[in-house]
Amino acid sequence: MPSVSAFASSSSALLRGPPARVRRLLLAAATRAHSSAASRARGGLPRFHTPSLPSSKGEVVRIQGDEFWHMTRVLRLGVNDRVELFDGAGGLVEGSITKVDKGGTDVELLEDARLVAPQGIQWHVFAAFGTLKGGRADWLIEKCTELGACSVTPLLTERCHTIAENRVDRLQRLVLAAVKQCQRIHEMSLKPPIQIGNLLPVVSQSKLAFLASAEAPPLLRVLPKSSNEQNGLLIIGPEGDFTEEEVHALKSAGAAPVGLGPCRLRVETATISLLSALMLWSDANHQEIQQCS
Amino acid sequence: MPSVSAFASSSSALLRGPPARVRRLLLAAATRAHSSAASRARGGLPRFHTPSLPSSKGEVVRIQGDEFWHMTRVLRLGVNDRVELFDGAGGLVEGSITKVDKGGTDVELLEDARLVAPQGIQWHVFAAFGTLKGGRADWLIEKCTELGACSVTPLLTERCHTIAENRVDRLQRLVLAAVKQCQRIHEMSLKPPIQIGNLLPVVSQSKLAFLASAEAPPLLRVLPKSSNEQNGLLIIGPEGDFTEEEVHALKSAGAAPVGLGPCRLRVETATISLLSALMLWSDANHQEIQQCS
Repeated sequence: MPSVSAFASSSSALLRGPPARVRRLLLAAATRAHSSAASRARGGLPRFHTPSLPSSKGEVVRIQGDEFWHMTRVLRLGVNDRVELFDGAGGLVEGSITKVDKGGTDVELLEDARLVAPQGIQWHVFAAFGTLKGGRADWLIEKCTELGACSVTPLLTERCHTIAENRVDRLQRLVLAAVKQCQRIHEMSLKPPIQIGNLLPVVSQSKLAFLASAEAPPLLRVLPKSSNEQNGLLIIGPEGDFTEEEVHALKSAGAAPVGLGPCRLRVETATISLLSALMLWSDANHQEIQQCS
Repeated sequence: MPSVSAFASSSSALLRGPPARVRRLLLAAATRAHSSAASRARGGLPRFHTPSLPSSKGEVVRIQGDEFWHMTRVLRLGVNDRVELFDGAGGLVEGSITKVDKGGTDVELLEDARLVAPQGIQWHVFAAFGTLKGGRADWLIEKCTELGACSVTPLLTERCHTIAENRVDRLQRLVLAAVKQCQRIHEMSLKPPIQIGNLLPVVSQSKLAFLASAEAPPLLRVLPKSSNEQNGLLIIGPEGDFTEEEVHALKSAGAAPVGLGPCRLRVETATISLLSALMLWSDANHQEIQQCS
């Protein structure tokens, strides 16, 4: 894991997407790919993960391990069944099963692989979960991945000033498992920990930065009716909450405090709760923009 | 656990609140109690659970066990510190610590105990989680409690036709722990399992019934701008989803299908995601109604 200082030296890395070349490809492919990709993500062909995706129609890729088991034992798919393959990095393609044996299945591409651009607002979660116990950090990460967060960054604050490196390694494995499970077209990026001081400039640059706060107005009253922003930030404090100084600094940088409803929520629950509402809002917002355009 | 048939014979029990006498008390106390109760739930005095709450100013209640430990060791409260006591059944009162010894603390009531009415829309979750593994049912229940659901009912469907009784007993203990943790003024009710057929009449009677469905329009586009309903239903299918017949029956009964965003969510994630958005919407909606009245 990169050291915090080395990492924090480039705070723009926090929101960094794919490199320029890939971005151009993504943009070129976006219009063509989106409608089908989105609709399939909402049901449609069964989708399977493969670490390496061939690029051209007619090529064959071998599916093994868990995905093979899920394809043939759980869903009972066989020769000539159509499936969708994704690599978790934006690559998506439709294929047909041509062979099933003891060790795996061969899937032939029915089209050239497409590079699908991320759709809607990309949400970046900054949560002080380094001190969470009882697998709560595990499922915070798992659920952020399932819900479609673009990135999660462990936030280091006065009351949560560290996170074990071995925990980060373990969380990386959880992310990959969740990406496969929820069939995300794009991976979720688990970023190195960041000191709250290094988050402030990122907040200043963002027009959609929300700070979980017990006494603030409800999130859904703070959200704009719609937004064309590409990125948004969600900031959640540690057990015992931020210090007053930290809250003041985040607000001054431009973070909007948003309420969590009437109950006192745990760190991981607050994160999932706000992220869920924001993802559903983004989704509605995105579909509206599409229909208008 | 009551048998499903015996239970289902009175489907109104699904949404049953406190008995009439208590309801009258609640209503009488609501106006007086709400503003302070709500504001405290959003921060304010530290709140502690006690199974039995005295009714009159000046009476003394003994706090022991976990709550004692949390009060004196975690928050380091001592003599003359003010606290709030709740019994999880609507009872709420402000008190002052008068004595701390090895076994517990004595808290003297600074006012007569108040009975606080539930505020805003009460959400009833019907989720087919009987077959969930790996503690997923546990945290579905824990998070529904934290997020403020009024009740959770295990839903029995064609693809999730049973739930172990010992699991229900275990979940009851989780609910109580979560109620204490999140300082809910009212307990969450974990109902006996219900066959989907017995849910249909309840759906027919409800004006706010939402059905989690991958291909439906996003929740936030389906929600009305505001609502004066007292109850709402949230229905989530099992792993492998509802059958087409079940979905048809629920829609025919009046359940509105709502989308879950672009990713495929697990049963427990879909439940928490939609409940979070609905609770935040209710909270905004409720505050709006209060300000208008």
